[in-house]
Amino acid sequence: MNESKKELLFLALGGSGEIGMNVNLYCCNGKWLMVDMGISFADPYYPGVELVLPDLEFIEKNADNLLGIILTHGHEDHIGALPYLAEELGVPLYATAFTASLIRHKLDENDIKSLDLHVVDEGGLVELDPFTVTYKPLAHSIAEGNGLFIETPHGNIFHTGDWKLDKEPLIGTPTSPEELTAIGDKDILALVCDSTNIFNDQDSGSEGDVKRNLIDVTQDLENRILVTTFASNAARLQTLGEVAKATNRTLCIAGRSLDRMLEIGKANGYFKEFPQTVDFHTAMQLPRSEVMIIATGGQGEARAALARIASDSHKIALEAGDHVIFSSKQIPGNELAISRIQNALAEQNINMITEKQAHIHVSGHPGKPELAKMYDWIRPEILLPVHGEIRHMKEQARFGARCGIKKQIVQKNGDLIRLAPNGPEHIGYERAGRLVLDGDILIDADGAAMNERRKISMHGQISVALVLNKKGEAEKALEIHCNGVPLDEDLDGFLEEAHKDAIAAMDVWLSDIEKLRENVRIAVRRCAHRWTGKKPIVNVLIVEL
Amino acid sequence: MNESKKELLFLALGGSGEIGMNVNLYCCNGKWLMVDMGISFADPYYPGVELVLPDLEFIEKNADNLLGIILTHGHEDHIGALPYLAEELGVPLYATAFTASLIRHKLDENDIKSLDLHVVDEGGLVELDPFTVTYKPLAHSIAEGNGLFIETPHGNIFHTGDWKLDKEPLIGTPTSPEELTAIGDKDILALVCDSTNIFNDQDSGSEGDVKRNLIDVTQDLENRILVTTFASNAARLQTLGEVAKATNRTLCIAGRSLDRMLEIGKANGYFKEFPQTVDFHTAMQLPRSEVMIIATGGQGEARAALARIASDSHKIALEAGDHVIFSSKQIPGNELAISRIQNALAEQNINMITEKQAHIHVSGHPGKPELAKMYDWIRPEILLPVHGEIRHMKEQARFGARCGIKKQIVQKNGDLIRLAPNGPEHIGYERAGRLVLDGDILIDADGAAMNERRKISMHGQISVALVLNKKGEAEKALEIHCNGVPLDEDLDGFLEEAHKDAIAAMDVWLSDIEKLRENVRIAVRRCAHRWTGKKPIVNVLIVEL
Repeated sequence: MNESKKELLFLALGGSGEIGMNVNLYCCNGKWLMVDMGISFADPYYPGVELVLPDLEFIEKNADNLLGIILTHGHEDHIGALPYLAEELGVPLYATAFTASLIRHKLDENDIKSLDLHVVDEGGLVELDPFTVTYKPLAHSIAEGNGLFIETPHGNIFHTGDWKLDKEPLIGTPTSPEELTAIGDKDILALVCDSTNIFNDQDSGSEGDVKRNLIDVTQDLENRILVTTFASNAARLQTLGEVAKATNRTLCIAGRSLDRMLEIGKANGYFKEFPQTVDFHTAMQLPRSEVMIIATGGQGEARAALARIASDSHKIALEAGDHVIFSSKQIPGNELAISRIQNALAEQNINMITEKQAHIHVSGHPGKPELAKMYDWIRPEILLPVHGEIRHMKEQARFGARCGIKKQIVQKNGDLIRLAPNGPEHIGYERAGRLVLDGDILIDADGAAMNERRKISMHGQISVALVLNKKGEAEKALEIHCNGVPLDEDLDGFLEEAHKDAIAAMDVWLSDIEKLRENVRIAVRRCAHRWTGKKPIVNVLIVEL
Repeated sequence: MNESKKELLFLALGGSGEIGMNVNLYCCNGKWLMVDMGISFADPYYPGVELVLPDLEFIEKNADNLLGIILTHGHEDHIGALPYLAEELGVPLYATAFTASLIRHKLDENDIKSLDLHVVDEGGLVELDPFTVTYKPLAHSIAEGNGLFIETPHGNIFHTGDWKLDKEPLIGTPTSPEELTAIGDKDILALVCDSTNIFNDQDSGSEGDVKRNLIDVTQDLENRILVTTFASNAARLQTLGEVAKATNRTLCIAGRSLDRMLEIGKANGYFKEFPQTVDFHTAMQLPRSEVMIIATGGQGEARAALARIASDSHKIALEAGDHVIFSSKQIPGNELAISRIQNALAEQNINMITEKQAHIHVSGHPGKPELAKMYDWIRPEILLPVHGEIRHMKEQARFGARCGIKKQIVQKNGDLIRLAPNGPEHIGYERAGRLVLDGDILIDADGAAMNERRKISMHGQISVALVLNKKGEAEKALEIHCNGVPLDEDLDGFLEEAHKDAIAAMDVWLSDIEKLRENVRIAVRRCAHRWTGKKPIVNVLIVEL
């Protein structure tokens, strides 16, 4: 790619083709601008890891032409990769005050001092020639969600970030329809737009309704009420503060990420009327009908407050007749973990209310009616869906076409798109992989280490130790160890037979150590298959004396 | 437990506290009767296995007093464990004709000849003194779903099996409300009842509606239509045959389990009007708008027809503009696998319709209104919920109380319940574990082999080979092999340091081989932790020359 070409490009290195891990790049006349740098949380396909990160190799190679990183809002899927990947890029970061505080906290935790973090005013401007970026507040489930109005010599872009429409957002003041229409009046080349909830035919719903419904549901309940939600859902925290006040319950917060969100929010002027909270001990002394607990862990996370409370290993205890309210949706992949906790609570005769029983959760992403309104206000020439799996982005493209947008382009991570001139056009592919944080190390999510672990988890593993003596001859002694092979009481019988088979396999090719290794490997593997029907991974270790 | 006591007991060895794997036992005056013997399908918590089975150790020990196994219907979660566990019990099996054919097929596949399989007429009687069991057909998603009316000297039981109410079941003729009321007139001590869909506040809905809606959805579609559903959902197969006829499409069947269900169904007098099907080659030659394919794999199963079609490795191919209809619900735990297939289809511009877009699936289990009706007809003294997780069974007990049933008892696998005299009462606990079929071997689902595999999948594994020479001294030579440890380009550096650390750890206690092993294990594990932050499983193999 000739980077000095006079053109405007778009490239996603994450978040287009999957949920989370959002990284979007714009290139104008050879200069790159990054929007967001998020993570995802690992599912069981990545055993032993928690975080999945984008592989930024492409932009690391082009870091000389990267102008900066613009952060739209403070959710993990938009800022979470900064502590791991931003330092190497070494460019300035831009965020509004609350988001900047969340980022600063993350960088401090990881002892990163070198990064230049600029605080942008609400509605403020970032000039990074040839880009001019204006922050445009939009409602979302966290304070200071922002769309970006990006002006370039090749045309203007409206990049929504995560957004919804909400008449009563409870936190922050979103850009009005009139202001969005005024942006649309400025000839928008491309709308780069959130696809997360495209399969929702309704409006996402208002946080104000959630507040009223939570008050309805809780006001006549006896005994303790615990509400679980994401710590990152600052709007919901605000709501729960107001619900506690309206129902005359004293609030107690269980979960460090909730404490941090409240602290950073307060430092930035949010949660002003939030009620005083009490510590665990005080909460447990209060009459049961006078306390409300907000806890992390509604997705079934094993180490979060709710899981520990459910298994009686937390200072907050619940008992028969108490209530747990799940004010969140089940993230796909977490269903079984959530069931485990719900069963543990049910067994203790604790009542549960989920969004299936009452309208006590709204999404932070736009349904079809909201998308249609945004299209009408912005009136883009091109619709470029982001933030979603392929099926979500394809559906938004179809929906945009039905709503009258002239051009749509569906891309996924790594697809290089020319927006102008003569766009949109798919002009190439750049590698856009995934990394996982495995222990302290960032490795390829589908590289050797993860693949070996996956294989062993399915098939088991056998190690065989052989010895070559000083003459280079294989000794007729060996040792075999099995991991995760279904042998149980047959283990001794198997070891005896595998031993014999391995010795027999050593009779040939003594001069070729790799052939020896392979012969023994196959002999032991065949023996294991005969005994168990499994085909374990067999490693042959040869000690040369 | 004194087995000759004059009493009526209930014990679940599977299916009470989890979905699937149903095994229920009744004991009257020391004689046991088993109802159903099902399996579950493994989730990612059981890597490398597909089937989870009940551990029947308790009844194996009491096999002398086991009279027989009554099978309610032919679903895997009710008959699937028979080929693995029934032979050891050696008691007769009882099932209606269609169910018996499905069982016979399974036993033949596993070359089991010894079992006595009795075919019971619809509505027929099984006398196994002191039990008299009468089959009572109930609507379900397979032909020949049956409740059981069980008469004993200590009182009568109505055991529902899996059931729903359906005015238009399309397959089979369920027992009428009048007949169920007549059963209720016979003084029912206990209703042992399906809890699967207790959280559904509505009726489960009729298969007749599914048929009409599928015709509505499909009749104006251009191009190929593929419908995916469970092969075991014989009612849906019947529906799809009628839909193909109504929309003038030629049917093609992709998936061996579908072929088998049709074949066995036809041999038992079902699917009489089912249209002629064509082979893959013929289906692909037909005009695209004249074909309908029924395929397995709607739960995202990697080797089923739909996954192979989506990845272009099947004789049936789909192309842009074709349609895939998911006529099934997403089983919890399968969401991510289903998403993967849906994204692969979306990428090829294949349209998808799921039960979220149209009412094209109904459950085979009763919602609250159906349960309330059953309670009114049967009027039991005791409600004993089965078939569900704890939270489902607790909820049914609460619902039964609200509906006026006098006594409820919530039990889970292993809880021994006395129903009469003076019941219900929890009187003991018997071990009720889970097995997995791992390769050819049945092992404890949470035993050593599975736990080792889970651990390695999270932490990785390192083998160290040492040598003791003929004098019993440790040689200063060793070999190290890593599996799934995140080292990448650092591997050589790590191996060098781990080698040194291991040699250093061998300097002490040369006389104690286990101490030597432990010293080396800890040294290598520490080294790995220093390099990666992980704590891999380290196995030390010592070859004695």
